[in-house]
Amino acid sequence: MLQMVAPCSAASFAGGVIMPNLISSVDSLPKLAAYKKEILESCSDNMFIPYMTLFFRPYTKEELIAAQTSIIGIKLYPAGITTQSEGGISDFTSIHTTLSHMEELKIPLLIHGESNGFVMDREREFLEIIQQWAEEFPHLHIIVEHITTADAVAFIDQYPNVSATVTLHHLLISLDDVVGDALQPDLFCKPIAKRPSDRDALRKAVFSGHDKIMFGSDSAPHPRHKKECCGCAAGIFTAPVALPMLAELFEDEGKLELLQNFTSDIACRRYGLRPPKKTISLIKKEWRVPELYGDVKPFGAGKTLRWSLE
Amino acid sequence: MLQMVAPCSAASFAGGVIMPNLISSVDSLPKLAAYKKEILESCSDNMFIPYMTLFFRPYTKEELIAAQTSIIGIKLYPAGITTQSEGGISDFTSIHTTLSHMEELKIPLLIHGESNGFVMDREREFLEIIQQWAEEFPHLHIIVEHITTADAVAFIDQYPNVSATVTLHHLLISLDDVVGDALQPDLFCKPIAKRPSDRDALRKAVFSGHDKIMFGSDSAPHPRHKKECCGCAAGIFTAPVALPMLAELFEDEGKLELLQNFTSDIACRRYGLRPPKKTISLIKKEWRVPELYGDVKPFGAGKTLRWSLE
Repeated sequence: MLQMVAPCSAASFAGGVIMPNLISSVDSLPKLAAYKKEILESCSDNMFIPYMTLFFRPYTKEELIAAQTSIIGIKLYPAGITTQSEGGISDFTSIHTTLSHMEELKIPLLIHGESNGFVMDREREFLEIIQQWAEEFPHLHIIVEHITTADAVAFIDQYPNVSATVTLHHLLISLDDVVGDALQPDLFCKPIAKRPSDRDALRKAVFSGHDKIMFGSDSAPHPRHKKECCGCAAGIFTAPVALPMLAELFEDEGKLELLQNFTSDIACRRYGLRPPKKTISLIKKEWRVPELYGDVKPFGAGKTLRWSLE
Repeated sequence: MLQMVAPCSAASFAGGVIMPNLISSVDSLPKLAAYKKEILESCSDNMFIPYMTLFFRPYTKEELIAAQTSIIGIKLYPAGITTQSEGGISDFTSIHTTLSHMEELKIPLLIHGESNGFVMDREREFLEIIQQWAEEFPHLHIIVEHITTADAVAFIDQYPNVSATVTLHHLLISLDDVVGDALQPDLFCKPIAKRPSDRDALRKAVFSGHDKIMFGSDSAPHPRHKKECCGCAAGIFTAPVALPMLAELFEDEGKLELLQNFTSDIACRRYGLRPPKKTISLIKKEWRVPELYGDVKPFGAGKTLRWSLE
């Protein structure tokens, strides 16, 4: 799978934050190094910097000191909340020491922020927990991943140490697209798409150039049999179309000038990154998104897009 | 399909209201007669009264007079709101004359009550339209089919001429079961299951013996390929398990004595029916729900149930 998808991301981006929720969680430096090596080998034709993350668990200060130059941050999953997160956190009161060390060492905390409540409320409910951390650790950089609600946008505004990412698909779809007419497994992901008004809030923030809300694709490839059978896996594969579709989106809003900011500059500022110079060119040339990449159906399969990667 | 499913319903019930949203809408007496004949032939081994409905469209008074002894009511679908409802109503201001005739002739109006708004709001929004009809036609018996929300329950309470049906599955599942963990096409139906609090309100009403809320299975068989592919058809097939599962449900609530009321007596009172004497016996004998009936997966496939049809 990596052989197929890594070049898709490398074709569009100078680098990306790599999430650690593999089947075997990436919670040690050897695992991290091995995964990074695989990614680099899969992209050998095209420069791509994998910004690695560790899978959150209680870490000693020594472990964190040893890891900090190898990672962009540590990704926290509530246990069972999403794909391959069974080893995540169940007791949120037990992690303060680790968070304290991270704050001290300036290691960012990335979060899949959902409670185990009613599906439409999970993100809002989890903000209460994030709020406690944001207040207790005001120097800890917290990134709320793939936000989907107006509540989350409002929350980001309240805390200087909190950033967020938003996906391509959450700027476009709502729950209506997932279950409103027919059930659409290829639009099913976590957090699930919410109300149209939530999507509007996300778009408003992004198209105003909100300086703490960065693009994060959460591109999640699943083979067809994981999508088409009952109990379909959550996740939308957007990597091959992310940049072209974002370009259309921003252009339609008359905000094409914000694209670079959204897909790169904000993140560089928020994370203190200086990625290598890499130029991605988009040209106004129509192309039709393939039905499949290998055995994986991409977001927008069969659609004709206005912008191509050169 | 009818050959397979009709006996399932006939095994559990003396009769059932037959919905008219076939591929070719049942909107004429010849179509109605033909469909009824097919149903009776499919149940020939077991008595089952199909209470027929016509598909709502503007009908003249003459048509209604000609039809009234052949139907239990007329079923209204907003255009496109559910399976095979493309011929439904788009302009709700255009139907007053038909409703007025129905009121005069005492022909009940059955409704799939959903707007084309956000999926979680459709039922609540449509109540506003039903309210207008309930007030304008106080002698028209209106039955809101397969209600799923606390709002609908509260609404029923306000109008003497309004009844409702509720399905088996909406007493058991919420949106969490459909999309909260994995996507479950076999639990996808319309109206979609809502919040746990909505389910609680339905259960509370049913287990208190609410005298205007009747059981209506909305049992909807779809072959596997319509469920398992992308764009999966809406509908849950409960006919073979409806009575056994309802028995468990009511028994668990300590309300087994309400089962007869819920599955038969309320409806007979509300519709003024005197169905033929037919005895269905349930015995306390475990059985395992098959994975498939023909090519159709039933609700609760693979589950062991406590009550069997004798």
